[in-house]
Amino acid sequence: MVDKSKYKFLFNIDSPKDIRNLDVNDLKTVCSEIRMYMVDVISQIGGHFGGGLGTVELTVALHRVFNTPEDKIVWDTGHQAYPHKILTGRRDKLQTIRRLNGISGFLKRTESEYDAFGAGHASTSISAALGMAVAHDLKKNNRKSIAVIGDGAMTGGMAYEALNNSGILKSNVVVVLNDNNMSIAPNVWQISKYFSEMISHPEYNKFKGAIWELTGKLDSFGDRLRKVAARLESGIKAIITPGMLFEALGFRYFGPVNGHNVVKLVTMFEQVRELNGPILVHVITEKGKGYKPAEGHVQKLHASTPFDKDTGKALPKKSGPPAYTKIFGQTLSEIVAKNKDVVGITAAMPDGTGLDILQNDHPENYFDVGIAEEHAVTFAAGLATEGIKPVVAIYSSFLQRGFDQIIHDVSLQKLHVVFAIDRAGLVGADGPTHHGVFDLTYLRMIPYITVMSPKDEDELRHMLNSAINDYSGPVAIRYPRGSGYGVELKPELQSIKRGSWEILREGSDALVFATGTMVGYSLAAAELLAEKGINITVVNARFIKPLDESMIKDFSEKFKIIFTVEENTIVGGFGAGVLEFLQEHDLDNKVVRFGLPDEYVDHGTQAELHKILKIDAEGLAEKILDKLNKTGVGAGVKLNEQT
Amino acid sequence: MVDKSKYKFLFNIDSPKDIRNLDVNDLKTVCSEIRMYMVDVISQIGGHFGGGLGTVELTVALHRVFNTPEDKIVWDTGHQAYPHKILTGRRDKLQTIRRLNGISGFLKRTESEYDAFGAGHASTSISAALGMAVAHDLKKNNRKSIAVIGDGAMTGGMAYEALNNSGILKSNVVVVLNDNNMSIAPNVWQISKYFSEMISHPEYNKFKGAIWELTGKLDSFGDRLRKVAARLESGIKAIITPGMLFEALGFRYFGPVNGHNVVKLVTMFEQVRELNGPILVHVITEKGKGYKPAEGHVQKLHASTPFDKDTGKALPKKSGPPAYTKIFGQTLSEIVAKNKDVVGITAAMPDGTGLDILQNDHPENYFDVGIAEEHAVTFAAGLATEGIKPVVAIYSSFLQRGFDQIIHDVSLQKLHVVFAIDRAGLVGADGPTHHGVFDLTYLRMIPYITVMSPKDEDELRHMLNSAINDYSGPVAIRYPRGSGYGVELKPELQSIKRGSWEILREGSDALVFATGTMVGYSLAAAELLAEKGINITVVNARFIKPLDESMIKDFSEKFKIIFTVEENTIVGGFGAGVLEFLQEHDLDNKVVRFGLPDEYVDHGTQAELHKILKIDAEGLAEKILDKLNKTGVGAGVKLNEQT
Repeated sequence: MVDKSKYKFLFNIDSPKDIRNLDVNDLKTVCSEIRMYMVDVISQIGGHFGGGLGTVELTVALHRVFNTPEDKIVWDTGHQAYPHKILTGRRDKLQTIRRLNGISGFLKRTESEYDAFGAGHASTSISAALGMAVAHDLKKNNRKSIAVIGDGAMTGGMAYEALNNSGILKSNVVVVLNDNNMSIAPNVWQISKYFSEMISHPEYNKFKGAIWELTGKLDSFGDRLRKVAARLESGIKAIITPGMLFEALGFRYFGPVNGHNVVKLVTMFEQVRELNGPILVHVITEKGKGYKPAEGHVQKLHASTPFDKDTGKALPKKSGPPAYTKIFGQTLSEIVAKNKDVVGITAAMPDGTGLDILQNDHPENYFDVGIAEEHAVTFAAGLATEGIKPVVAIYSSFLQRGFDQIIHDVSLQKLHVVFAIDRAGLVGADGPTHHGVFDLTYLRMIPYITVMSPKDEDELRHMLNSAINDYSGPVAIRYPRGSGYGVELKPELQSIKRGSWEILREGSDALVFATGTMVGYSLAAAELLAEKGINITVVNARFIKPLDESMIKDFSEKFKIIFTVEENTIVGGFGAGVLEFLQEHDLDNKVVRFGLPDEYVDHGTQAELHKILKIDAEGLAEKILDKLNKTGVGAGVKLNEQT
Repeated sequence: MVDKSKYKFLFNIDSPKDIRNLDVNDLKTVCSEIRMYMVDVISQIGGHFGGGLGTVELTVALHRVFNTPEDKIVWDTGHQAYPHKILTGRRDKLQTIRRLNGISGFLKRTESEYDAFGAGHASTSISAALGMAVAHDLKKNNRKSIAVIGDGAMTGGMAYEALNNSGILKSNVVVVLNDNNMSIAPNVWQISKYFSEMISHPEYNKFKGAIWELTGKLDSFGDRLRKVAARLESGIKAIITPGMLFEALGFRYFGPVNGHNVVKLVTMFEQVRELNGPILVHVITEKGKGYKPAEGHVQKLHASTPFDKDTGKALPKKSGPPAYTKIFGQTLSEIVAKNKDVVGITAAMPDGTGLDILQNDHPENYFDVGIAEEHAVTFAAGLATEGIKPVVAIYSSFLQRGFDQIIHDVSLQKLHVVFAIDRAGLVGADGPTHHGVFDLTYLRMIPYITVMSPKDEDELRHMLNSAINDYSGPVAIRYPRGSGYGVELKPELQSIKRGSWEILREGSDALVFATGTMVGYSLAAAELLAEKGINITVVNARFIKPLDESMIKDFSEKFKIIFTVEENTIVGGFGAGVLEFLQEHDLDNKVVRFGLPDEYVDHGTQAELHKILKIDAEGLAEKILDKLNKTGVGAGVKLNEQT
C-alpha cells in the first residue's frame, strides 16, 4: 500500500524517543515524510485530514521537547492527532483508522499510553490538562501538561472557564493555541477576528511603527523623558499584542509563531518547558498545509472520503438516496421562505447539520453561534420569548452540552424552541464520543417536551413542519446520520397529530412498537418472519413523548407481549416509557425491549454495528422469534419452523 | 408590618412609569426608600438580601431610562432582583417571597410582564438578551434588551460564549456588568482580579499619568510628532482600560461607573440607549450597600434567615440535627486528613456544599473553580488520570450543566470521579430552578456509574468513604438539602458493598423499595399502617445503580406488588429501573411507583411540598393502603380498616 523506499526516517520511528535522537534539522524531513504518509494512506481510506496536515510540525516539536508519555499532551477534540498517532507506535495501523476493530479516529486512553485524554467533543483540553497539572503539583513529580486547542474550540465556554481557573491556580499548564483561523466553519471566534484585523490592519502597523520611532527619538530629550519612554515601550509591548487577553486571564503569552517552522517551534518549546505558571503559546498553522489540493479548501477536507491524491478530488461513489441532513436543511429553508419569523441556529456545524442550505437561501435567518451549545439553546430561548421560532440544529451527543439549558431556560418557561437532533443513534466511524444514544432518555424526562423520531426522510419533513407550525413548547426531532430510504417526498408539508402513532403492517402473531431507524428494520424483520409464516404488526411509534396512549391501550387488549425497538440506550428510553405507561394504567402485558446496551459501543460502520448488536432486520427477527418460541404467546406462532 | 408614613415615594410607585415622572434628583430618595423597605421586610422573613441591596440604584436607573416592559431587562440568576420586584408591582407581595403560593425569589415570566426571562442558574442572561436583541432586529421594532450580570456569573462559560457571539452578530444588546468583586465567594474571576490590580496599582496610574504628560508635551514638537501623539493617545485610551477585553470581544466599553450614584447611572444609560451594537457598561457596586451590618459580610448575607434589622444578627432558631451538607464536609475533611491524594472541588459554592470545612482544614486539597460546572467535571477527570481522587461537590440541578462532561470525559474513560450531589430532591424556597429532581434519571442511564443515596446523615459518611476508597469509575451520591435525623454517627468509616440494599423492617402485607429521603417517610408510613394492622417491609434501596438484583429476585417470589418510592421525577427514575429489571428477568410482579410528577414543582417549604405531593408519611400510607384495597394483593390486608 505504501512504498517504504520513499521514506528515510519514518519507518524507523516507533515512538517519540526516536525523534529525540535525531539532529534537529532532520526534523524537517520527518515532517515531510509524515505529511506524505498521511496523504498516501488517507487518500485511500478517507478520514479527518486537513487538521492533521496542519499540526505535523507542532506534533513533532512537542514530542521532541517534552518527555511524553510522562509529560502529558492533551489534544482538543482529536481531529488533528493523526501525526501524533503516527509518531506514537500506530503508524502501521493508520490504515485501519475509524474502521471496525481498527484504531480510533480520536484519542483514546485505552489505545495508547501517549493518549493522555480522549475527546471527540470540543473545548475540554484545557480543563483536563489543568487537572493533570494540579495532580503533578500534588504528587510533586515535576511532569508537564500541555493542551493543544484550535481557535474553533476556543469559542466553547468550557475553554474560557478553564483558562480563567488556570490563571487563578497558577499551575504549570501550557496551552498551545493552534490558530488556523478556520476551525470547521470560519468566522465564529470574535477574538480571532480581532487578532487578524489588528495584526493585518495598516493602521496598527503604522501605529506600532510610530511608537518605536517616537520612543527612539525621545532618547535625545534627556533623562526623564527617556525613562518615560522606556516605560512606555515595555508597557505597549505587553499590552498591544494579541497576548493581552491571555495576560488578563493570568497567562504568559508567547507568539504568534509560525507553526510550520519545526526548528523554531522546538526552540520555543525548549524555552517554555523551563518556565512555571500558566503559559499560552500562540501558533499559526494552515489546515491542509503542504498538500496543495487541501490548502484553501479547508472545510471540504475537514473530514473526507477517499480521494485522488494528486488532484484531491473525491473518488466517485455510487449516488444514493438523500441524507436526512439534506432533507432537513431543504425543508427548513422551504419553511423559512414562507415565514421569516423562523430561524435556524447551528453550533459551528453548518454543513454537518444541513443549515448551510438555509445560510445560502436565507442568510438573515441563519445563525452560527460557534462551538457553544449552552449558548445556542438559551439564545434560542431568548428569541422565542419575542415571538421568533428558533430551530436549534445540534447533533445528539453534542446537545448533551445544552442539557441544563433545555430544562432551565426552555422547558421550565414553556418556550417554543424546536431541536433538530441529527446523528441520533449510532453514527458509525466516529465512535462512542459521537454516538447519539442517550437523547431519548435525557429528553423524555423533561416536562412539557414533545419528542419524536421519523421513520423515513419524508416523515422528517412533516415532523419539522408540525414542530414549527402546529405544536408549542419545546419540541425535539431526532434522526440518524446518513441516507434516507429514497422514499417519495410529498411536496405539500403536512401536519402530524401530536402523539399519534401509525400502524404500518398488521399481523396477529406479535406486536412491535418501533421508533425512528428501527421502523425500517422492523418492517424488514417482519418480512423475514413472514417467510416463516409468522405475521407481525409493526407500529411506527413516532412520538416518544407523548406516547400514543389510546393505541397502546387498544393493542394491550389484543397482544400479550409488546416488543419495543429503539436505537437508544435501553436504560430509561422509549421502551422504558412504554413500561411506565402500562404500569401506570395497570396493564399487565409483557414487554420485551430491544435497544442499545448499557455500555459504550465502539466504532465501525452503522450497518456493522447494527448487525453486531442484533438490531438489524436479521437480529430483530431472530430475537422476536426466539421470544415467541420461549413464551408461546401470540396466536398462530409456528414453533417448529425456525430450524 | 411596615410603617408607610416613613415613605414619601415608594407607596406611590406601582410600576416603572411612576419613576419616569419624578424629578431625577428625587430618585435618590426612592433608592433610600427601597433599601429601607427591603431591610424592613427581609429582616422579618429572610431571603436573598445582599445582592438586592447592591442593585438598588442600578434597578431604578434602568427602569427610569429604558421603556420596560417593551424594552427587556434580563437579570442574571435573579438573586439581585428584589428591587426590580418592588418597582414592578410586587412591592406589597414582597412579604410572601419564597413562600408557598407567594412570589418567587427569582424572576419568573408567569409572575410579571417585567420579568423578561426567568433564571436561577447563573450566566444565562447575555444569551437570552442577545436572543431578544436579534428578535427585535428581525421584527424591526427598535426595542432594547439589557442583560445585568454579576462578576461571579462571568466565570461561567456560557457568558463568554454569548459575549463572543454578540461581537460577531453586532446586535443591539447592552450588557451591564454588575461588578461587586465578590459574587457568592470571592476571588474566582481572574479578569476581575486583573481589573482591580491594574486600576489600583501605582505603576499603572504612574504609567497612565506619564502618557498624558508625554503626549501633552509633544504638542510643542511640530506637526508630525503631534499627529503621532494624537494617534498614540487615542490608541492608548482604547487599549489600556479594563475595557480592552470587552473591546476585543466586539463590545463598546463604558465604565467603570459608580453603581450607587443613581443620577450618574441615569445619564450614562440615556447615552447608551441611543447607541447601536453590543455595549458593555461596567458598574461597580457593593453587595449589602447601605445596610451597615451587611456591608463587609457579604457571604453571610447572600441568603439569610430572618435577622435583627439593627444589628444584622440572625434571629435565634431552634438548633436541630446537623445538615447533610455539614456532615459531608466534615467527612470529606476527615478522609483527606488520612489521604492527601483526595481533593474536593466546588463551583463557587464553598459554604453551600460544605467544602468550606475542607478549605479551612486542608486548603491545598480544596479547589473553587468558579461558576463553571463544565470545567469542574473535566478538571476532575484530568486529576483522576494522574491518580488523584477528586470529589466534585455540586448541587443536583447545577450538575445538569456538567452532564456531557460526566458522560464524555468521566464515564467513557472509566475515570474514578466522585460526585457529591447536594440539594437532590425538592429544595424548598428556591423553587423549580433549584429542585434537584432529575438526577436519578440522567445519571442512571450513564454506563459504568454507581448511583447511590443515603437514608440518613450517618450513611452518607460511609457512602462517601466507600465511593472514595472502595469503588472505581464514576460514583454519584445524592442527598437532600437540610437537616439529617440526628442519628448517631459511627466514628469509624465503613465500607458498603456496592449494589447492596438493606432491609429495615419486615412485614408480610406489602413491600416498599424506598430510596434516599423516602426511606424515612416510608418507615413512618409503615408505622401509620401498622396502627391499622398492616405490616409492610421497607427496604433501603440505597443503590439506584446497580440495583440489588438478588434482593429484588428474592422478594419477587414473596410479594406480588412492589412499591417504589423516590424523590425524583417519576419518568425514567429509580422505579423505572426496577420495572426494567423485572422485565429483563421475566418477572411478573406488579410495580407501583411513587415519585415526583412529570411537571415542575413550585416553591414552598420541603415539608409543605412533600405533603402536597403525597410523598410524606401520611401521603404514602394513604396511597399504599388505597392500592392494597383496590388490588387485594398481599396476605392479611384488612380491607375495611382504612376509614
